Amino acid sequence: MDFLERLGEITGDILTGDDAARYGRDWVGTYVTTPLAVVRPSNTPELSAIMALAHEMRVPVVPLAGNTGLTGGGSAEGALVVSVERMNRVRDINPSARVVTVEAGVILSDLHDAVGDVGMIYPMTFGAKGSARIGGTLATNAGGSNVLRYGNTRDLCLGIEAVLTDGRVVDLMGELHKDNSGYDLRDLLIGSEGTLAIITAAVLKLYPAPRARATAMVSVPDLDAALALLNQLQEDTSGAVEAFEYMPRDYMVQLRQHRPDLTPPLGYDVDHTVFLEIATTRAGDAQMNSDGVVPLSARLEETLGAMFEAGHVIDAAMATSEGQRLQMWEMREAAAEITTATKPLIICDLSLPRDRAADFLREAKERLSKRDENIRSCTVAHLGDGNIHFTLYPSSGAPDHCDALVEIVEDIVREMGGSFSAEHGIGVAKLSSMRRRKDPVALDMMRAIKAALDPRGILNPGKTVP
Amino acid sequence: MDFLERLGEITGDILTGDDAARYGRDWVGTYVTTPLAVVRPSNTPELSAIMALAHEMRVPVVPLAGNTGLTGGGSAEGALVVSVERMNRVRDINPSARVVTVEAGVILSDLHDAVGDVGMIYPMTFGAKGSARIGGTLATNAGGSNVLRYGNTRDLCLGIEAVLTDGRVVDLMGELHKDNSGYDLRDLLIGSEGTLAIITAAVLKLYPAPRARATAMVSVPDLDAALALLNQLQEDTSGAVEAFEYMPRDYMVQLRQHRPDLTPPLGYDVDHTVFLEIATTRAGDAQMNSDGVVPLSARLEETLGAMFEAGHVIDAAMATSEGQRLQMWEMREAAAEITTATKPLIICDLSLPRDRAADFLREAKERLSKRDENIRSCTVAHLGDGNIHFTLYPSSGAPDHCDALVEIVEDIVREMGGSFSAEHGIGVAKLSSMRRRKDPVALDMMRAIKAALDPRGILNPGKTVP
Repeated sequence: MDFLERLGEITGDILTGDDAARYGRDWVGTYVTTPLAVVRPSNTPELSAIMALAHEMRVPVVPLAGNTGLTGGGSAEGALVVSVERMNRVRDINPSARVVTVEAGVILSDLHDAVGDVGMIYPMTFGAKGSARIGGTLATNAGGSNVLRYGNTRDLCLGIEAVLTDGRVVDLMGELHKDNSGYDLRDLLIGSEGTLAIITAAVLKLYPAPRARATAMVSVPDLDAALALLNQLQEDTSGAVEAFEYMPRDYMVQLRQHRPDLTPPLGYDVDHTVFLEIATTRAGDAQMNSDGVVPLSARLEETLGAMFEAGHVIDAAMATSEGQRLQMWEMREAAAEITTATKPLIICDLSLPRDRAADFLREAKERLSKRDENIRSCTVAHLGDGNIHFTLYPSSGAPDHCDALVEIVEDIVREMGGSFSAEHGIGVAKLSSMRRRKDPVALDMMRAIKAALDPRGILNPGKTVP
Repeated sequence: MDFLERLGEITGDILTGDDAARYGRDWVGTYVTTPLAVVRPSNTPELSAIMALAHEMRVPVVPLAGNTGLTGGGSAEGALVVSVERMNRVRDINPSARVVTVEAGVILSDLHDAVGDVGMIYPMTFGAKGSARIGGTLATNAGGSNVLRYGNTRDLCLGIEAVLTDGRVVDLMGELHKDNSGYDLRDLLIGSEGTLAIITAAVLKLYPAPRARATAMVSVPDLDAALALLNQLQEDTSGAVEAFEYMPRDYMVQLRQHRPDLTPPLGYDVDHTVFLEIATTRAGDAQMNSDGVVPLSARLEETLGAMFEAGHVIDAAMATSEGQRLQMWEMREAAAEITTATKPLIICDLSLPRDRAADFLREAKERLSKRDENIRSCTVAHLGDGNIHFTLYPSSGAPDHCDALVEIVEDIVREMGGSFSAEHGIGVAKLSSMRRRKDPVALDMMRAIKAALDPRGILNPGKTVP
């Protein structure tokens, strides 16, 4: 029997042809591939059986969750796509222990809703939350807009279950906050982009939902002022800053053009906008007092006032209703949509030491203009994490030209001790960057680990490890 | 030339015989071994040359830092001990970016002092801080008493440099808060107990030093009440609980006997003592007001008062001076000293889901007494992390008897979804537990990784991986 016949004995649901085609295509349309077939197992034993067969017959497998990635990590030319979309149960919510057990196919915003019902939050959030699935956030160690306070996916995950290349299931599903029983296999599999195993379930941390939030858009004179504001706000709130996002003028241009329904409260004519949010679980900080003031909001106003006096703040608008707050968030979360609306484009997802963002942007724009005088950019940054999403719109999409521009950007990143991939991962988009920029000894270690855990090289081949 | 002759060409400082003997012995005196020799390289290139030679000549190497471990991870029978004690420079402190770059031989309390001078803290702390060195904290993913607020060593480390088995140096020294450029090699090496590489330097996170702390010893009726107090205190402070430690009556017995100079403010006759600390960086919470009250302390009193009303607190003593505060800390940090003062002993370092500690202790004492009616115990727990240090004093130290007792404890731990090693690691002490208790697929993955990164098996052989 050939592979698909034997596969049919494991699962009756095999998609091929047009039905499979949409799984081989990313949402931006940059990576269009033709999978051999698509299967959607309902549980771990079924997925395990599929992997055992693929391993035996040496068929390449591409795991897929929400397919919202930006680096072509789901490209699947001639491969079997294993979608986890049907493994979508929230198995258990334990608010007193503050943990939730989920399957890999759960959609991020569904998880938000489920734990919200019991007064908890799972703090990971980003624009694609309505489509992204937990398995994908784990495979890519997703970041987002609340990393500053709560950490990235690795920081939020206590345990995982995963299927290895030969179908064996590894059980690392503890809900423990400390566990030094051997190598950190959990964090090795998280962020390995499906090249070492397929993550099927996880135990994630929950936090009590804040009782109040204070949210603002702030105009600052420059990035140094923004960093001063962040440090002061952290100190004044004992570390309660949940989001601290940077949207300069080139972002506002793109926002106005592609989401004119969203109107920034300080207008479009602002050089440096910071979007920030602080939060509290303390009842005394959240309850409106007799003067009609919520202490948390008063605290934010106080800090903004002092920073205004010090010349670090030019203007500010605080959200005065949940509707206003959500509209501010929407302006930030529309980033993927509005930055990818212009073509040709080059997506650079960079991280830098926190205090180098201003230097980077100045230097990059100067050097890029010398190479391409009509180049435009769109910048949006998780400034608190030193993470800059720097999208370029070159005057031509010719591969050589684009490569040269990426080289210019990455040269500066390296000079400043940064990384060419902050949170999007490697996939196929950043393979050449890995080859050129990653420490060669680290690359050798990655290759040795890949060969040790996937000796037949069938798991998401051609991704992540050059 | 033989190995030691060639080694002499790399370093003039080779200890042998009696000079080497103290490096082969742990501080408790449980593991006494005779090293082949001891070298103490001054920098990474020298350490790299030593490893290249050891690799070529297939000589086993045991890396050693402060030698304060409890699991025999530094046992070195016939091996070359590579001590990092001379690589002890704090290379750079950057308070505005909140990072410090250190070499592996820096003593933890020296690091505390160095960053304290610029108003920062490196929050990792535990009893052995005056001897433990950063390299050891990284090799074992050390925990300690502030994990609840700041995380364990992995959470506090942004970048590392390490020497591989063949002497090559891997540079993962970024100070980035987000970096998804490939597998998480950093976290794989952290906690690998010197079996995959020797960590030589690190970039660590700093936090602004709190402006005020409020510290108390509290008598609670039971462990459920303790957990209720923790959750309420977290909510009332928006997550500012820095330490939440549990010391039941059996701990007080041991304290009274071995450190009579330390007198607990609530006396020895308390069933369940919680030692807790909250902190703030907010000036307004730290400054004494016109009534002579520090708002942070008032807040703690308020929560303790409410919990007293609710029956969750029986009595409490707050530290009213820094001297009192330090004495309370000393009562906790004396744990290693006072628990190991009685022999024979069995050290169990367990973690459990946070809400299972009470069940565990009741069940363990019941089952252990059936096996050994004269057994005593000493319990001290990082309760906020679900981490229980449960030391047993059996009526006999016969290996079979001790093994049977460990089995009883670990059976219960497994039943409750816990781990047999929370923060001490595996070394040689927990190898049999790894063999019996660890998921066999996870063990296979560990063996595959060990073989891939240390194919000649010369790095800390016989440890961690059974």
